[in-house]
Amino acid sequence: MTAITIALDAMGGDNGASVVVPAALHSLTQYDSLNLILVGDREVLTRELAKYHAKETDRLTVHHASQVVGMDELPSLALRNKKDSSMRVAINLVKTGKAKACVSAGNTGALMATARFVLKTLPGIDRPAIITALPTSNGDKMVRMLDLGANVDTGVEHLYQFAVMGSVLTSAVDNIKNPRVGLLNIGSEEIKGNEQVKKAAQILLNSSFINYIGYVEGDEIYKGVADVIVCDGFVGNVALKVTEGAVKLVVHYMKQAFNRSWLTRLSGLAALSVLKSLGKQMDPSRYNGASLIGLQGTVIKSHGSANKLAFAHAIDEAVVEVKKNVPERIHSQVGALLLPAMAK
Amino acid sequence: MTAITIALDAMGGDNGASVVVPAALHSLTQYDSLNLILVGDREVLTRELAKYHAKETDRLTVHHASQVVGMDELPSLALRNKKDSSMRVAINLVKTGKAKACVSAGNTGALMATARFVLKTLPGIDRPAIITALPTSNGDKMVRMLDLGANVDTGVEHLYQFAVMGSVLTSAVDNIKNPRVGLLNIGSEEIKGNEQVKKAAQILLNSSFINYIGYVEGDEIYKGVADVIVCDGFVGNVALKVTEGAVKLVVHYMKQAFNRSWLTRLSGLAALSVLKSLGKQMDPSRYNGASLIGLQGTVIKSHGSANKLAFAHAIDEAVVEVKKNVPERIHSQVGALLLPAMAK
Repeated sequence: MTAITIALDAMGGDNGASVVVPAALHSLTQYDSLNLILVGDREVLTRELAKYHAKETDRLTVHHASQVVGMDELPSLALRNKKDSSMRVAINLVKTGKAKACVSAGNTGALMATARFVLKTLPGIDRPAIITALPTSNGDKMVRMLDLGANVDTGVEHLYQFAVMGSVLTSAVDNIKNPRVGLLNIGSEEIKGNEQVKKAAQILLNSSFINYIGYVEGDEIYKGVADVIVCDGFVGNVALKVTEGAVKLVVHYMKQAFNRSWLTRLSGLAALSVLKSLGKQMDPSRYNGASLIGLQGTVIKSHGSANKLAFAHAIDEAVVEVKKNVPERIHSQVGALLLPAMAK
Repeated sequence: MTAITIALDAMGGDNGASVVVPAALHSLTQYDSLNLILVGDREVLTRELAKYHAKETDRLTVHHASQVVGMDELPSLALRNKKDSSMRVAINLVKTGKAKACVSAGNTGALMATARFVLKTLPGIDRPAIITALPTSNGDKMVRMLDLGANVDTGVEHLYQFAVMGSVLTSAVDNIKNPRVGLLNIGSEEIKGNEQVKKAAQILLNSSFINYIGYVEGDEIYKGVADVIVCDGFVGNVALKVTEGAVKLVVHYMKQAFNRSWLTRLSGLAALSVLKSLGKQMDPSRYNGASLIGLQGTVIKSHGSANKLAFAHAIDEAVVEVKKNVPERIHSQVGALLLPAMAK
């Protein structure tokens, strides 16, 4: 296999180089034909590598960038003022073909704005979207959902493009032949859905490419009834964050309940291994790595607070998307299918 | 105190009379000055009462209705063909002043359509909304959220009306002087919110009546950062159902983890009391009773699968809303405040 080169924004995220460098070293041990470029302050990165008795090699190089995009920085300001940021330079390496993909744990808004500005969307795709894999109660099955916040005020044509992109990515990355695509909707019969969702459903029903299975309600996302769930970025972002909040509420109640008396504290000790394995199963590092999809290049967003293994998982996602040529696949599907379906 | 009379749709919900009748008997023991009207098939209701050695009294009467609205019946069909349904007749009793409120566990869409058709919205309110209380990790504090699915394609003026209604209800029912009102939004900086949310925020900022605290993200709902959270019905419904799905996923993983070996099963036994108290804390019956707000009368929607205590909790909600004159309060607030604020 020919080697894959991936550029890492080594300064991004809450922990910057102290997570990205060990994650990179870990990932290199996992793949024989992977090369990584650490993009960021050379001095910081060399010092960080030294901690692991590591230095630059053929497979691990440092590419200096003098600036860092702050986690709360406005995307427009980052775009204008941070032309030598580790994020921007890493994306530039994809643009110039020196890397096949880029992974960043930096500010999502800035990453999306910069990636869109530098790489541009694929022909036929109006707007990139954010897609990630989520766990389900159906064994090891995962569900991929998009858009998770790149777009608001989404039009019907965008929902259709999300469906095509989600279907192509899931088919390629998860090896699912005809991924079941559902539209997120609400259950109230008469008013089932807003105007966009109703119109998007009509287009999806008429699409020969998409294996459209109909509406999916909020409580069905984690049941594994669909392989891909399509929604507006506002709704998707709320759904994702509400999940985080609901899980935290359960954990809060659980801690409270176990702390009530010495007896319950004792049973808490007994249940500790179970709770740990529960935590592992819900561990975001298993699902870390959202894709910015619809661009002329592969860009993976790691969670800002990702640890070493979680960041390494985002690198895994980049490797598989590069191997499977996801942008090229979307390009050819969109060219072949989007226009006739939209013409109906 | 003068007696309060409440009409109960005794045939609605998954369990109909077998839940509503014992719930009614229970509620009568809780309040001295509460009268209840059981609306539904007289024969069924008399038989159900007999099971509890109960019969009609001054405080508990049966009002015959020959039809029942099915849980999956289209609202428009129910409205047209079920003029003698237990649901419609119970709402009629509110319209004619024979009852001050109505409680139904029936089909939400039909209940909303019928209540809106029979009772009409309050002057100044374009659309009724669904509001309910949700638990938070902030002690016993609850948060009320609206709209939960009565409206999609919500306009800016509707979001403002939701804020006024939610604020009035929360202030009256939960005895909170200036309820903190937040707008549900997504965090991505630049595109913070869709057009409606951004415009609604401007109006809320200019409102002297609303204690507007700004945007609330999905993961903050259950933290208790706001007393009232306002959103479009599509988003609210997804948020509510995603919560249900996420909690079920955690419970699923927990069961799986405890079942792994005899040792974990044993610790599961030890933790049983804790898990039970956890279940109690998250128990929907503690929060059962969503209000259809903005109507000329009080209508409470119980969950379709509510048990006796959960349905009784929905009756509690009706009692307090009647005592506090919620529709009249909304009416006077809307008259005094809506027009000047909207004129800006």
